[in-house]
Amino acid sequence: AGFRDFDLKVGTMSMGPRNAITDVAGVQVGHVTVQAGDINTGVTAIIPQPGNLFQNKLTAAVEVINGFGKSAGLVQVAELGTLETPILLTNTFGVGTCVNALIRYGIAENPDIGRKTSTLNAVVCECNDGVLSDIQAMAVTEADALAAIASAGSEVAEGSVGAGTGMVCFGFKGGIGTASRVIRLAGEARHLGVLVLANFGRAGDLILPDGRRADPKQPPQSEKGSIIIVLATDVAVDHRQLQRICRRAGAGIARLGAFWGHGSGDIVLGFTTANRIAHHLDVDTVAMERLSDHRMDEMFRAACEAAEEAILNALCAATAVQGPGGASRPLFADWLKAQRAS
Amino acid sequence: AGFRDFDLKVGTMSMGPRNAITDVAGVQVGHVTVQAGDINTGVTAIIPQPGNLFQNKLTAAVEVINGFGKSAGLVQVAELGTLETPILLTNTFGVGTCVNALIRYGIAENPDIGRKTSTLNAVVCECNDGVLSDIQAMAVTEADALAAIASAGSEVAEGSVGAGTGMVCFGFKGGIGTASRVIRLAGEARHLGVLVLANFGRAGDLILPDGRRADPKQPPQSEKGSIIIVLATDVAVDHRQLQRICRRAGAGIARLGAFWGHGSGDIVLGFTTANRIAHHLDVDTVAMERLSDHRMDEMFRAACEAAEEAILNALCAATAVQGPGGASRPLFADWLKAQRAS
Amino acid sequence: AGFRDFDLKVGTMSMGPRNAITDVAGVQVGHVTVQAGDINTGVTAIIPQPGNLFQNKLTAAVEVINGFGKSAGLVQVAELGTLETPILLTNTFGVGTCVNALIRYGIAENPDIGRKTSTLNAVVCECNDGVLSDIQAMAVTEADALAAIASAGSEVAEGSVGAGTGMVCFGFKGGIGTASRVIRLAGEARHLGVLVLANFGRAGDLILPDGRRADPKQPPQSEKGSIIIVLATDVAVDHRQLQRICRRAGAGIARLGAFWGHGSGDIVLGFTTANRIAHHLDVDTVAMERLSDHRMDEMFRAACEAAEEAILNALCAATAVQGPGGASRPLFADWLKAQRAS
Amino acid sequence: AGFRDFDLKVGTMSMGPRNAITDVAGVQVGHVTVQAGDINTGVTAIIPQPGNLFQNKLTAAVEVINGFGKSAGLVQVAELGTLETPILLTNTFGVGTCVNALIRYGIAENPDIGRKTSTLNAVVCECNDGVLSDIQAMAVTEADALAAIASAGSEVAEGSVGAGTGMVCFGFKGGIGTASRVIRLAGEARHLGVLVLANFGRAGDLILPDGRRADPKQPPQSEKGSIIIVLATDVAVDHRQLQRICRRAGAGIARLGAFWGHGSGDIVLGFTTANRIAHHLDVDTVAMERLSDHRMDEMFRAACEAAEEAILNALCAATAVQGPGGASRPLFADWLKAQRAS
Repeated sequence: AGFRDFDLKVGTMSMGPRNAITDVAGVQVGHVTVQAGDINTGVTAIIPQPGNLFQNKLTAAVEVINGFGKSAGLVQVAELGTLETPILLTNTFGVGTCVNALIRYGIAENPDIGRKTSTLNAVVCECNDGVLSDIQAMAVTEADALAAIASAGSEVAEGSVGAGTGMVCFGFKGGIGTASRVIRLAGEARHLGVLVLANFGRAGDLILPDGRRADPKQPPQSEKGSIIIVLATDVAVDHRQLQRICRRAGAGIARLGAFWGHGSGDIVLGFTTANRIAHHLDVDTVAMERLSDHRMDEMFRAACEAAEEAILNALCAATAVQGPGGASRPLFADWLKAQRAS
Repeated sequence: AGFRDFDLKVGTMSMGPRNAITDVAGVQVGHVTVQAGDINTGVTAIIPQPGNLFQNKLTAAVEVINGFGKSAGLVQVAELGTLETPILLTNTFGVGTCVNALIRYGIAENPDIGRKTSTLNAVVCECNDGVLSDIQAMAVTEADALAAIASAGSEVAEGSVGAGTGMVCFGFKGGIGTASRVIRLAGEARHLGVLVLANFGRAGDLILPDGRRADPKQPPQSEKGSIIIVLATDVAVDHRQLQRICRRAGAGIARLGAFWGHGSGDIVLGFTTANRIAHHLDVDTVAMERLSDHRMDEMFRAACEAAEEAILNALCAATAVQGPGGASRPLFADWLKAQRAS
Repeated sequence: AGFRDFDLKVGTMSMGPRNAITDVAGVQVGHVTVQAGDINTGVTAIIPQPGNLFQNKLTAAVEVINGFGKSAGLVQVAELGTLETPILLTNTFGVGTCVNALIRYGIAENPDIGRKTSTLNAVVCECNDGVLSDIQAMAVTEADALAAIASAGSEVAEGSVGAGTGMVCFGFKGGIGTASRVIRLAGEARHLGVLVLANFGRAGDLILPDGRRADPKQPPQSEKGSIIIVLATDVAVDHRQLQRICRRAGAGIARLGAFWGHGSGDIVLGFTTANRIAHHLDVDTVAMERLSDHRMDEMFRAACEAAEEAILNALCAATAVQGPGGASRPLFADWLKAQRAS
Repeated sequence: AGFRDFDLKVGTMSMGPRNAITDVAGVQVGHVTVQAGDINTGVTAIIPQPGNLFQNKLTAAVEVINGFGKSAGLVQVAELGTLETPILLTNTFGVGTCVNALIRYGIAENPDIGRKTSTLNAVVCECNDGVLSDIQAMAVTEADALAAIASAGSEVAEGSVGAGTGMVCFGFKGGIGTASRVIRLAGEARHLGVLVLANFGRAGDLILPDGRRADPKQPPQSEKGSIIIVLATDVAVDHRQLQRICRRAGAGIARLGAFWGHGSGDIVLGFTTANRIAHHLDVDTVAMERLSDHRMDEMFRAACEAAEEAILNALCAATAVQGPGGASRPLFADWLKAQRAS
């Protein structure tokens, strides 16, 4: 169940056909959910495009809204503006293992890596699911990471799934959400899509687009947790433009009542499927295409709206999960239903 | 008339006694309004503390939310974390003249400047009031700048005054606004105050804290204009903490429906009145005090709420101004009254 | 007299035909020197390309190596990656006046500015010539700034001229210097050129490329002063690449024995003459060309070598200047001659 | 054998008693070397202070000179300015495993991590030793990482040891090096120490402090590899100051003839042993001490000199290593001896 199923909407722009990051052609998403005893965790893989990503990199950018986070690979994305692996999302203590998995995945596809050519930059982002999962178990395996990649497709499961299994958001059960917006360029529909791993926000702070405050009646903790936002577009932008677009996803978070809390690792990782970059180039210069800056406001608005709606979709889709010591969080969908009933 | 006069409120924290940046002890604000023919502009001065600021600098920080702006002095504030002049706000083409005024003001107080000691870093921020004022006239003079400083006091006039005279915000008449929040430390009330020069936001995008959209029925332009946010606190923070606090003012902007538009110079300049820094030091080390990071979320929330409310106060206080070719913008206070009446 | 006249050389790459920033086709440089009594200052103008720069902007980038500086316009260059005015260099207290001059210059060419279109971003950089000039006099006028622009050509005067008139470098007389390097792309010669305003370095710290230390036997001051480096190229790079290239000019400074001192405003401003950007665009996307990253090391090396050599050329070309109280600095050319004689 | 054994010196400041990072009281360094068949790699651990680092964090900062690197934990150090684990150095594909080891190490010391308190930020930096080691083997184990920590002491082995085992520098055999400088504050000796993992520089580019070029006669490759610089001091500085100090280590790299090549991950990670930060604080504010900015130039000079000398020490101490396919690199010590003999 998505946010729109409750007759609610975010912003003014049109959503894409799936209202998902996979509205950007070629993007695929897969999940592996790991649940056993006190463990409620997993891995979510975003495949930015089919084919060998190391040989044919993507233009990418990163915006660190609040750097209380342990993600891997961001420094190189910021410097070079390129992405050369699938993006994995997992729990905080699963990052090292997912990095190892991506390295093996990359070597399997490119036996020259680290021998006749450079190494590769594994991109893994994380949130802390310690409230609803035994994070000390370090339960995610390299096989889980590879299975998430292998399972990827264009349908995106939302809520308590994959990396989102044990996440909490504004005191409600959180998780994976996605949304998209349409931009018309030269008469054609292009897309900006967002996928979030939503694990942020203090109980009682959530503000809905219609002004209502949604309070799960949980003890207010300090704003911990984190949010990872993966942003994709098929609009041709360069690295500088893409970073500016990523920054605007932070406005979407803020509109829901969060303020990028001290203990929240709020990170946006963006890529465009245009302007691919070959690993081996024997030419001195390459042609690129870039959006005119006078169209940037639409991209900004799309990033803001899609991020806000993706978070609300994560909240609406989340299903109940029971963690260590019987810990659980109420469902936002139940709150909405109760409101509708009253 | 402030936003609260309409029985509306922002957030959950308490405001200070004046609900103004001058709730931070020692901060003073002055305005000079320049109006003649098609000219509707001016200068607003924020005196961060009494006394010789060059000899006794303040700990300061800057956050560039969107750098489409022509402010002066920000590079050095970012590097050294210090403020050594009053802060002047004016129109975009008044920056050079206000810089010159601050230099002369500094030399008058410190005849050694540029001779036996270093130069000084004049801090001037700006928005473009070209819709309601003939900005090409470059009407602001050095005397205006000095008069704004000389007129400073603890009462803050809001709306169409000083640098705010010709500003526009979400298609309504904009200008100067202020607000504050109380933080209790060790049982004592401390303050975080904000003053904004609000000249941003696309007509039709404004969202009120209660979820209403306020549309002035103006032709939607691209999000131009800008917003300057000056943030003051008497809480002891260091440069790193202060920059993080400044960043959260951007969440306040976002909650009103803006997304830090491409053409909007959205800049936050913050200072603390604690941790003063002597220009001449004959000791090797100095003692400082710093807020524990576990209290940062309150500062973040205060910055977000105060920024949001200061903008709404600017909108509510703005009075009608007629610019070139009879240009004008409707008043947000009128919109609120009409809503209340219906 | 340049550094090479002393049979010395920097690095391994070839220099361009003029060994000047004007080896980049279309770049022009002009100076106005202001000397009277204790005043030894001026303005240097770099015209990045002929024609209306506001209508046809350049791709630009800025690297702040150490931000103890008062330059204008850098924030917007960093955000938008564009340059839309000539670049003016002057003394620290001349920045406001040069900003005003550039605004009037821009309005004269583009009467719509601030009325029917946006404002413009004046770029002015500075060093403190207070040792050899009465900087408090604020002697530079708007007419001086415009005259420097009007006088621009492809021959670059070096040493104690224009903004370099009163500058000091490593305890020697400093000033303006320039150098260039050749990069071969697709069989054709392209250029990277640098112009410096050299006013940095502690007396006794200068290390020549051959390992000699050049000590002017001046009392060692703390490393004050500053250096502004303007970097131009006709190689097609994007904003991200250009900023990385600019950063490498800092390596050239370091090789001479400086360490980007606390009080030194060390700033690099770069532009490419490729990838021009129209102010008014009625298309959604534009084509660009970008250097393959595997050629970046040559650009880095060129930036490093050209910066180092331009500083040495400034030192070699500087002529004697007498400042307030009879202040002066020895000539590096004299030191080199004395070394050669011994 | 260190660089000074060849009657050579770097800069003008005095070195500490060990000329090592461990001149900063309490800092310890340990190595585990992993060699078998084609594998020449290892782990180097820097223990910034004794005791429980998670409970009693250090003030830290990071400077990314060139971000072509895969280090872990840097984003959080940049945001929070704290270090809460030992620092591990290893090969590029050992990062994930070393992250896992640090997590287990942290949990063992702090069983609350991820349960009743936050997670921890593992800091691991890397260079690519693929020329002299089979990096695809991913040979480093969690046990190796923990053994490196366990073996730490105040004597620092240099050269082809620990993470330095398979590294290459300017075409010579590279590896681990260290150096220190003395700063006198209030009459007492304080220290700034540096440890490098040197794996950067193109063959033929190395310039010695006396101006000689040291060419190993290797085929010139593009500047690959990387350098990690760990910088420690017992001088009380804050995060802003520390980052500025870290930046100056880049000047030391540049003086040796490198220009922070495109493919080189050049990263500086610094910490001070003053201004410790408790994980659990029940007070609102904490007292700190900070160096007066007028003493910063000494810290900058020390960082520059110590970095330059540490690299030369790494080169001088390196011993022969044979890698895949019989690959090897000449020894810089041999080059120096041959020069001395001729």
